[in-house]
Amino acid sequence: MQISEIDTLVHLLAKLPALGPRSARRAVLYLLKKKDSTMAPLITAMQDVYDNVQPCPVCGNMDTQVPCAICGDEKRDKTTLCVVQDVSDLWALERSNAFKGVYHVLGGVLSALDGVGPEDLKIASLIGKVQAGGIQEVLLALPATVDGQTTAHYIAESLEGLPVKISRLSHGIPVGGELDYLDDGTLQTAIKTRRSL
Amino acid sequence: MQISEIDTLVHLLAKLPALGPRSARRAVLYLLKKKDSTMAPLITAMQDVYDNVQPCPVCGNMDTQVPCAICGDEKRDKTTLCVVQDVSDLWALERSNAFKGVYHVLGGVLSALDGVGPEDLKIASLIGKVQAGGIQEVLLALPATVDGQTTAHYIAESLEGLPVKISRLSHGIPVGGELDYLDDGTLQTAIKTRRSL
Repeated sequence: MQISEIDTLVHLLAKLPALGPRSARRAVLYLLKKKDSTMAPLITAMQDVYDNVQPCPVCGNMDTQVPCAICGDEKRDKTTLCVVQDVSDLWALERSNAFKGVYHVLGGVLSALDGVGPEDLKIASLIGKVQAGGIQEVLLALPATVDGQTTAHYIAESLEGLPVKISRLSHGIPVGGELDYLDDGTLQTAIKTRRSL
Repeated sequence: MQISEIDTLVHLLAKLPALGPRSARRAVLYLLKKKDSTMAPLITAMQDVYDNVQPCPVCGNMDTQVPCAICGDEKRDKTTLCVVQDVSDLWALERSNAFKGVYHVLGGVLSALDGVGPEDLKIASLIGKVQAGGIQEVLLALPATVDGQTTAHYIAESLEGLPVKISRLSHGIPVGGELDYLDDGTLQTAIKTRRSL
């Protein structure tokens, strides 16, 4: 009974990771109620991003510049390379403001179950970057999952023999985290790697 | 550190009812990865809706036609008028396929707390429609909340003396609902209004 224009938009919005059909319908009604204050700017912003944002050929970050703002920044430490699974992880690390080096986005992690092999990820180009020289440390900021750690081990082995320090993020209790809610593995790691005050 | 185009889009998407900043960022990354299969059609669909969809001057439904497809449908029963709080409720009733009359969207419900009075809702035009004649039944499909029921009572009183039957949706156990999870009020109503088999 509804009209195809609205249905089409609901259907497309429902594909977004956080939305389902019901919330997509609510979103469309919200947009229809705020046509000028939200819908018009949203269309413009989406068109802007569509026209201008592309993956950085150097690191894989999404940006309007080529190379991206991070790779093109003279102040960033080009000798430290942080390997991440995805652009969202890169953005999360940037928000933390704790890393001043450059990035390398793998585009995923190795997964036997999902059939993701080394050739599906940007691992060859990572090895090439390190072989080209100038990089002193590779920080493997991969997820603390089985697949993430498998990938980290695979990369560490692939880089063996090259004059580069390999590091990973430390494991432990998240800041602000309640012990009661943590899994055993995290607690065990936090105890094993305890530090003296 | 991120680029303003992406930030602008994240900020605007985060305004949608079901999204926050984190899920909006995930949505933007999803769109960037599916530029041609999802992002381009989404922009077109949103522009289509923006250009063509508007509130129906008769009932308040959102549609590309004036009057809307429901009001303009010769087969709909114009003598039964269903009063709803919002367009989303109208769509929900249409999906149920159980109502063949026409609608009247109030645009909200009376609320002393939120300062919503009768003049903020489409109540005057509803009374006008009924006074104009031709309507035999007004079905008040308003939420079973205090505000919704206050609004229903207010409308019923406003229509007193007019030659029209006033009805409301029945209360009871939702189909498929477990008794254990229902509130006392619903159970009490379901017992009081029990039917013989």
